[in-house]
Amino acid sequence: MEKDKLEADKLHKIRHSLSHVLAKAVKGLYPQAKLAIGPVIDNGFYYDIDFGKEKISSDDLEKIEKDMKAIINQNLEFKSFVLGIDEAIDREKKLEEKYKVELIEDLKKAGEKEVSYYQVGDFVDLCKGPHVENTQQIDTRAFSLFKLAGAYWRGDENREMLTRIYGLAFLNKKELLDYKKMLEEAEKRDHRKLGKELGLFVFSDVVGKGLPMLTEKGASMRRTLEKFIVDEEIKRGYRHVITPDLAKLELYKKSGHYPYYKDSMYAPIKIDEEEFMLRPMACPHHFEMYLTEPRSYRDLPFKMAELAKLYRYEQSGELSGLMRVRSFCLADAHIICADNRQAKEEVAGVLDLIDFVCQKLGLEPDKDYWYRLSLGDRQDEKKYHKNDKAWDEAESSLRQLLKDKGSKFVEAEAEAAFYGPKIDVQMKNVLGKEDTAFTVQWDFVMPERFKLVYTSQAGKEERAIVIHRSSIGAIERVMAFLIEFYAGRFPLWLSPVQVKLISVGEKHIEAVKSLSQEFKEQGIRSEIDISDETVGNKIRKSASEKIPYILVIGDKEVNSSKLAIRVRGEKDMIEIEKAEFIKKIKQEIEDFK
Amino acid sequence: MEKDKLEADKLHKIRHSLSHVLAKAVKGLYPQAKLAIGPVIDNGFYYDIDFGKEKISSDDLEKIEKDMKAIINQNLEFKSFVLGIDEAIDREKKLEEKYKVELIEDLKKAGEKEVSYYQVGDFVDLCKGPHVENTQQIDTRAFSLFKLAGAYWRGDENREMLTRIYGLAFLNKKELLDYKKMLEEAEKRDHRKLGKELGLFVFSDVVGKGLPMLTEKGASMRRTLEKFIVDEEIKRGYRHVITPDLAKLELYKKSGHYPYYKDSMYAPIKIDEEEFMLRPMACPHHFEMYLTEPRSYRDLPFKMAELAKLYRYEQSGELSGLMRVRSFCLADAHIICADNRQAKEEVAGVLDLIDFVCQKLGLEPDKDYWYRLSLGDRQDEKKYHKNDKAWDEAESSLRQLLKDKGSKFVEAEAEAAFYGPKIDVQMKNVLGKEDTAFTVQWDFVMPERFKLVYTSQAGKEERAIVIHRSSIGAIERVMAFLIEFYAGRFPLWLSPVQVKLISVGEKHIEAVKSLSQEFKEQGIRSEIDISDETVGNKIRKSASEKIPYILVIGDKEVNSSKLAIRVRGEKDMIEIEKAEFIKKIKQEIEDFK
Repeated sequence: MEKDKLEADKLHKIRHSLSHVLAKAVKGLYPQAKLAIGPVIDNGFYYDIDFGKEKISSDDLEKIEKDMKAIINQNLEFKSFVLGIDEAIDREKKLEEKYKVELIEDLKKAGEKEVSYYQVGDFVDLCKGPHVENTQQIDTRAFSLFKLAGAYWRGDENREMLTRIYGLAFLNKKELLDYKKMLEEAEKRDHRKLGKELGLFVFSDVVGKGLPMLTEKGASMRRTLEKFIVDEEIKRGYRHVITPDLAKLELYKKSGHYPYYKDSMYAPIKIDEEEFMLRPMACPHHFEMYLTEPRSYRDLPFKMAELAKLYRYEQSGELSGLMRVRSFCLADAHIICADNRQAKEEVAGVLDLIDFVCQKLGLEPDKDYWYRLSLGDRQDEKKYHKNDKAWDEAESSLRQLLKDKGSKFVEAEAEAAFYGPKIDVQMKNVLGKEDTAFTVQWDFVMPERFKLVYTSQAGKEERAIVIHRSSIGAIERVMAFLIEFYAGRFPLWLSPVQVKLISVGEKHIEAVKSLSQEFKEQGIRSEIDISDETVGNKIRKSASEKIPYILVIGDKEVNSSKLAIRVRGEKDMIEIEKAEFIKKIKQEIEDFK
Repeated sequence: MEKDKLEADKLHKIRHSLSHVLAKAVKGLYPQAKLAIGPVIDNGFYYDIDFGKEKISSDDLEKIEKDMKAIINQNLEFKSFVLGIDEAIDREKKLEEKYKVELIEDLKKAGEKEVSYYQVGDFVDLCKGPHVENTQQIDTRAFSLFKLAGAYWRGDENREMLTRIYGLAFLNKKELLDYKKMLEEAEKRDHRKLGKELGLFVFSDVVGKGLPMLTEKGASMRRTLEKFIVDEEIKRGYRHVITPDLAKLELYKKSGHYPYYKDSMYAPIKIDEEEFMLRPMACPHHFEMYLTEPRSYRDLPFKMAELAKLYRYEQSGELSGLMRVRSFCLADAHIICADNRQAKEEVAGVLDLIDFVCQKLGLEPDKDYWYRLSLGDRQDEKKYHKNDKAWDEAESSLRQLLKDKGSKFVEAEAEAAFYGPKIDVQMKNVLGKEDTAFTVQWDFVMPERFKLVYTSQAGKEERAIVIHRSSIGAIERVMAFLIEFYAGRFPLWLSPVQVKLISVGEKHIEAVKSLSQEFKEQGIRSEIDISDETVGNKIRKSASEKIPYILVIGDKEVNSSKLAIRVRGEKDMIEIEKAEFIKKIKQEIEDFK
């Protein structure tokens, strides 16, 4: 652990120093360039620079990188000094570094009296440090300039558009190469790229950003996931309901989501004299359903689930394929429980369901996913509902459950919902970025707001506890995740096209069509390729589409009951009786269940 | 036919005369009452009356009806006369009949010079006629006052609220009794009433009007219908896609729906600087999907289907259960065809699909549903796109198809869409009201607007033709229809609860729960009744819920592999092996397919 920490500090210093070296190289090549900021990031560093009228392209990165290496090889020292704040402002004004001026003026407004600078060779830059002592501590084979991007000064779209130069930087050459390989693999797996190649979804400018349209292939995947989770949840005693995507603004005032959640919601729609909202969450609808009848302890736990269509505001810059969209479908549920004991049992049931779902999706516990116990911050009474006893009970119940499971979990302060603590199921995407995939939340606030009560065995009115949970997440997001996880090589049950039928010649087209129809009748998803291409090309194309089974139909197949099949990943064709193949493929799909 | 026409005219006169007799009786009992209008309607007549401060209730109808009968029995003649328009205004002003004054003043503005009146006994009313010659032509046993309702003067919610008295009227007593019986039956079948009794859907004031929430039972019915239609359409070569419920306003400007369709749409939602609409139809989305790739004649017919969530404005007064809602899900599709010949073939395919769907739903052609060929009005160039040749071809293709089918159909002028003629599938609801259930529309306009083209076999760019169609209608509406059609006694495959499990005593509860779970695992929808009620009461309750199979679990069943079953509609219990029962019920569901 100590060693990790030391290495991390060292890497941070290297990256930070490289950003100065980058700036020095740029100023050498483009003296008119104005520097903005150059921080360290996850995989290296960047610098935002105003190149003025000059335009630079990625071709220029090579030249800059070459100069950076030359600078490093001069074994220059990093030295720091301090200037009085007004002196610093004067300095930058003289150099016409307007971004630095603005930064220092803001520091002055914030009460700073002086600022620190770092000098490397003849290059001086405003900086808090820390840095390496000498550029010789930087391995020139362990960094490389990576890409260019546009970035608004201070992230404000009304300010100057700057050029951001990204660099990758690691401790040694191997780490850099490994990272580049990972990036390459991630790029190949990028669901936006694969989604397009495999024809799973499309966008249209005139329909709008963040609003993907699923083709028949993408839609088949989605329906498969939806049916899987609905069937499973019904087996597990959930009442699968369907409630509307909108509701009166009043509902969100009642729940307390409005105005706190307002920034994530779309503007209200006026219908007659009432205001309606596209819903950002389904809990208020489910609570209203619970309230339509008096409930008794016999009805509890009352488990309402829904494939809930939700709408949340995302800035257009944040939108990304199926991962970040403006309208999504959450496999949502709300479990109304009688008491803490029942709530704890139900959370255990949810964790079991999530394990089951993950297993079916091919994910391994502790490797592909793990738990995070997200706690409240008792000091922050603005963000978290005040009720120490309820927090204590809920937090210790959740912690106990995770311990009993024996699964890997971390605890995270101040990550809870405002109404109670939660267990988040965490996953990493192909770029190694951690994200919450599913969540189980303990809620002792909404039952008060909505008066969610039941009649106890003793005939008394008791307040319930609510568990909010998602099981398979937002369907769009899980699709994006699975595309990247499988790099498009989906297991048979999820494959949008399970069998591809290829005709050898013109005279086999009818046989291909009729066999495809036979598969359809059997519920097997098939696609045909009856183009004029050669059989070899057609097989290659189907293989690139990562289709589990490819069937080639020629004279021999037309004249017998045998099929010639190529199994995904195998080179050779195998021969099989048609009836046997249908049985086998149906069994393979069935076995998944 | 001639006789029917004569009888209809006679009935119209009787109903119209009864509305005068009603007004006369009311003025006799309530001299201060002000009369508004009293037209004939489908099943009788009504009169809108301003009773001023006096409040009348349905109890008063008996008294009014008695007076009406007395008036009729006086054998009074109906006589007409004409007054100059100003004279008529003066007359009504003197009588302080302000509604009549307003009506006549409007006639004057419209250029009328005189108005006609009818007199019966001492009662005179503004009226165009026609009437019976003498009240003796009215059978006093063939009418009855029916109900009271509120109605705004001129349908304007800012004007006076009047009292509307409805009367039923027929040619003879039998017809009246038959109609009343039908009403009673319709009331029993009313999907709003049954939906509540069977627990299929609920409403919440705070969620909003016209936004039903489907319980687990209603949702299971909906999912069953959805899966049925999606599976069938995929077998028939449709590409089942999923597109977003909203789109930029721009899309509806491109399609031409906006501003023409504006009144049916909800107000736009601003996201960042763009305006988005909740979609009232899915065709523009599907066209955009078609346009994401170049298409060739080989891709056509290109059949895109979707369970499309749509949003249309309905006045709150028009909302009714699942029948008229503000957000619904249409089993929608758009077929891009190469030419007229292909379009005709595809329409034939759609009619075949509709026949198939209707048959599965238990509807008989020519009895439960029939076709309407809805034509354009060539003179009305505002309402219908001008292109005589295209209209001719499309209309004659559709007519020919219906003739070839040999099905019952009527032709209706000026019922087409603006973009082409259509075939509507008409049904009657329990009240005998005709409505369009499904529709197949020929469209030669959108292909131009959206530039829907393909490369022909000759390598040329050709314009396509579009067929719009719904197959199972709006799911909410078809559910409302089926609830009424089956009076809640759904066929097994559609039944939200297929099996009800009843415990005899406390000690059988566990067995009931475990059997119910076993059914769930098998995909059989079951519900348990483990309450303290007597077995007799529990059976009666389940029977009233119209559940296909009721199982009673007592000592005998717990100790053997046999089940005691009560089949819906049968009095006696039968004994059956559990495994056999499961097989039988699964077979019964399967057979439906």
